[in-house]
Amino acid sequence: MKRTDFADNPCPIARSLGRVGEWWSILILRDAFYGMTRFDEFEKSLKIAPNILTRRLADLVEAGLLERRQYHARPPRYEYLLTETGRSFKPVLYAFIAWGNQNFAPEGTSVELVDRATGKPALPVLADANTGLPIEGPRYGPAPGPAAGEGTRARLARAAERGG
Amino acid sequence: MKRTDFADNPCPIARSLGRVGEWWSILILRDAFYGMTRFDEFEKSLKIAPNILTRRLADLVEAGLLERRQYHARPPRYEYLLTETGRSFKPVLYAFIAWGNQNFAPEGTSVELVDRATGKPALPVLADANTGLPIEGPRYGPAPGPAAGEGTRARLARAAERGG
Repeated sequence: MKRTDFADNPCPIARSLGRVGEWWSILILRDAFYGMTRFDEFEKSLKIAPNILTRRLADLVEAGLLERRQYHARPPRYEYLLTETGRSFKPVLYAFIAWGNQNFAPEGTSVELVDRATGKPALPVLADANTGLPIEGPRYGPAPGPAAGEGTRARLARAAERGG
Repeated sequence: MKRTDFADNPCPIARSLGRVGEWWSILILRDAFYGMTRFDEFEKSLKIAPNILTRRLADLVEAGLLERRQYHARPPRYEYLLTETGRSFKPVLYAFIAWGNQNFAPEGTSVELVDRATGKPALPVLADANTGLPIEGPRYGPAPGPAAGEGTRARLARAAERGG
């Protein structure tokens, strides 16, 4: 299955993965949130081969997550800035931070989300802004949206039967 | 950079990506949350080549996200069940659903998170369970944890300077 197939998949997870590309792309977005904008900054941070970085940056620009902007005319130099769609990826990165810290930091956390008002680590949970409640089962779960096709409806119905 | 390098990376995002493997693995986890457990269920749902599915399932078992359990003796048949670590991946999937729906569903959403008590779509935000506040800047942000090395501290200090 090619990435283009993912991008047209009815599942919002598959579709999102089609847009992000692959692991490098997620780490490039992470660095963009850390304020990096230039090719050499990403290259140094990620220790990534220049040809791969070039391709990943182009993919992220094409997917509308980064914007390429000339910041110097002679010689021409470009920087890469998060678009609004790119900025809205932040909760996914934060969810990865929380999951990584919870499961794969036996030596202690290296990066954590903090509440700068108190200096305390945040306890990140996904919540419903409508109710203020944590999004967890059995009250919350996936359901077909207005554009759901037959396949999606069938899968979600089976998931509901199994308590998914 | 190989996946094993990611698994040892101090960044919790890189480390998490090292555990999940790649796109297929995220979609396998999605289907496991939908209640699928058997090879042929994943194969049919994902339309994935059997040899790739075999490898991805083995990787997820090795990473401790799925458990392989024999459910039939003759002939031997196995099912794949989410471990506790695997279950704790759910907020990442939900964050992907929210991001996908927000950005890549021009025809309307196909899958959404709903509040089953009211039937309304949830408005997912990452919140701090300590304060009940949404985790967003400038109050909330990444900071070095107790195990942060020099590189991580330098990167986060530069991010803070840039308002990251």
